[in-house]
Amino acid sequence: MQAETPDQKLRARAARVIPGGMFGHLNANRLPEGYPQFFERGDGCHLWDVNGRRYVDFMCSWGPIVLGHHHPAVTEAVQRQMAAGDCLNGPSERLVELAERLVRLLPHADWAMFSKNGTDATTTCVTLARAASGRRKILVAQGAYHGAIPWCTPNPLGVTAEDRTHLLTFTYNDVASLETAVQRAGDDLAGILVSAFRHDYGFDQELPDPLFTRRVRELCDATNAALIVDDVRAGFRMTLRGSWDLVGVQPDLSAWSKAIANGHALAAVTGNDRYRDAASKIFVTGSFWCSAVSMAAAVATLDELERNDGPARMRAMGQRLRDGIAAQAAAVGIGVRQSGPPQMPTLLFDDDADFAKGDLFTREALKRGVYLHPRHNMFLSTAHTEADIDFALEATKAAFDVVAAR
Amino acid sequence: MQAETPDQKLRARAARVIPGGMFGHLNANRLPEGYPQFFERGDGCHLWDVNGRRYVDFMCSWGPIVLGHHHPAVTEAVQRQMAAGDCLNGPSERLVELAERLVRLLPHADWAMFSKNGTDATTTCVTLARAASGRRKILVAQGAYHGAIPWCTPNPLGVTAEDRTHLLTFTYNDVASLETAVQRAGDDLAGILVSAFRHDYGFDQELPDPLFTRRVRELCDATNAALIVDDVRAGFRMTLRGSWDLVGVQPDLSAWSKAIANGHALAAVTGNDRYRDAASKIFVTGSFWCSAVSMAAAVATLDELERNDGPARMRAMGQRLRDGIAAQAAAVGIGVRQSGPPQMPTLLFDDDADFAKGDLFTREALKRGVYLHPRHNMFLSTAHTEADIDFALEATKAAFDVVAAR
Repeated sequence: MQAETPDQKLRARAARVIPGGMFGHLNANRLPEGYPQFFERGDGCHLWDVNGRRYVDFMCSWGPIVLGHHHPAVTEAVQRQMAAGDCLNGPSERLVELAERLVRLLPHADWAMFSKNGTDATTTCVTLARAASGRRKILVAQGAYHGAIPWCTPNPLGVTAEDRTHLLTFTYNDVASLETAVQRAGDDLAGILVSAFRHDYGFDQELPDPLFTRRVRELCDATNAALIVDDVRAGFRMTLRGSWDLVGVQPDLSAWSKAIANGHALAAVTGNDRYRDAASKIFVTGSFWCSAVSMAAAVATLDELERNDGPARMRAMGQRLRDGIAAQAAAVGIGVRQSGPPQMPTLLFDDDADFAKGDLFTREALKRGVYLHPRHNMFLSTAHTEADIDFALEATKAAFDVVAAR
Repeated sequence: MQAETPDQKLRARAARVIPGGMFGHLNANRLPEGYPQFFERGDGCHLWDVNGRRYVDFMCSWGPIVLGHHHPAVTEAVQRQMAAGDCLNGPSERLVELAERLVRLLPHADWAMFSKNGTDATTTCVTLARAASGRRKILVAQGAYHGAIPWCTPNPLGVTAEDRTHLLTFTYNDVASLETAVQRAGDDLAGILVSAFRHDYGFDQELPDPLFTRRVRELCDATNAALIVDDVRAGFRMTLRGSWDLVGVQPDLSAWSKAIANGHALAAVTGNDRYRDAASKIFVTGSFWCSAVSMAAAVATLDELERNDGPARMRAMGQRLRDGIAAQAAAVGIGVRQSGPPQMPTLLFDDDADFAKGDLFTREALKRGVYLHPRHNMFLSTAHTEADIDFALEATKAAFDVVAAR
């Protein structure tokens, strides 16, 4: 009989005191067998589970880790701010610095507000669109993820019909469906909430079609509705100017979180002057929304991404991984689809509706010290080097061989 | 012409890049003139603003600081966890330790889940009550604060009627109004959400009447609805067993945040086994909900509160402050009302509908290095010593003299 591993022991303890053993998107029960639930530490692009196994990590904590764990510039800023103070009776100067920084970086932004969760940011954007317009309808793409409270959680359990009375859906990148939804909203259209690109769980990703993004902008201008880009997942990985800047469209409001502070809990809303007055009047707040350490971390993170052109570096390493995987798949005659920006790759297998091939492939990579996700988009960080990518490609080569042998 | 202070300079910068200069409950525009907006550092029960002025602080960051800033045991736990890792691809062992700790401390709790804002916790409780029952109505006390998203924010701007379709109100401590609300909910009653005690902004506080709390429990039992105690603000200051334990009533679900991790961003929901299944099925999550540093801070905070009977210490120091203020007010013949538990005191003046006396009093105390709030309940921490209370009482004595002279 095999001895229990530390991960198994912790899962058994967790099963007693945490419903289902774990909550939310980090629940390892959603992953193939063999994935660890509990982690011990991180360093750069490496991660150690509680069993002492090391991985080259391509999830980056599902987005937050953009410079790698323990980036010295962030650590220094965090330690300096912690020595002064974090959660005080009001903000520190870091709040102003960070707001100034975002206004300078983001062409669309005249102001910023801060919170803790991506869901806080998307919810504030929706509230602002309604407050500014006095209207109610919000358009969202079918299947898009915008958070996990009743108006947006993908699981309807515990949600009432009224939580979504004023949501109307369209299909991402489909101008006709967008126009239909705008018509249905009529003179009650408050805003259009749209992800930086289509990154739905379990599907190929789709970059935004410039015809679509321009039409979103035109329709918002024609109806005086808010164009809200949900940049929570994609923000600061493809560009530091806001993801839709790449297709030449500026939003009215943007929601940010994840990568903004390299793993420290922070979210932000940025907006233009049309929404400044409403933003000064709505009441949104939280006990830790002014905490200075996460803001010091964000300033240091944005500094570092800007100084070393982080998006270009992540794109180059992501492309190296993508090219290597494409060559390996072709060599063994396995059909795969790699989608999305190289910095946030999704890898899906052809003829794999039940994800059996993807599950097998990622399990085999995991065994060889590479943490991939079989269904969700992955994330590069600036800590990934060519050597890390090449190490990963050795693992994926072996994993393709196993899949091919089945 | 007087030179601008650092606080004034920061306010001017903030006015350009933050709507209204500041958002949420920490907006100093809601306070009397003379209160600083920006802070430099904290230590123990002391706080320094950016102008270099030091205060004995009775707001404790509006609740989170329960052991004082830079408590060595919390700092040590935080540094140790930071050196390992914080935001990883899953939780660390700290998650399990903290859940086990809460289950051991809280008589009502069989399990725990974690998030970042008090609003996350109250929203999860409401979602759970609906998920478990398949019903929709939630009863809340008129005027009670349960968070700042559309279903609960005190400001209706940007909120739709449907966000509150299924909320019904009663009057805190009023059994008849509670029974009427239960009747109105009929067979659609999912839960009753009630604050640990009545702590509404600008009103005298009211401790829960045991007749009322027992009736809440009876009505929930009779209808199979969830009794949810919102312990976000009061939790861990009056007792470590959940605030309604003091009146002999156990909730089904409790919401926690603020003091749980001595200023680190963390919230929790605890529940009993009736809600375990629903809690394993709803989907609630956030990018930083598994971050280990805040959980390490929480374990250290609860250790320290337990080891040194933090609630008793805060009660004693709060009582010393209350007794001193009562004697000072009587000596100058000014009518004041001190309400709520001594650990979370509210001080209001008689015949002061516009808060002019309270504003003057707190401004005068502020000038003398004591940070009080004129309308909201205040907070003690275990860092307050007799010397700090006596220092504060010198300031309040002078402040009463100024009020009496008007």
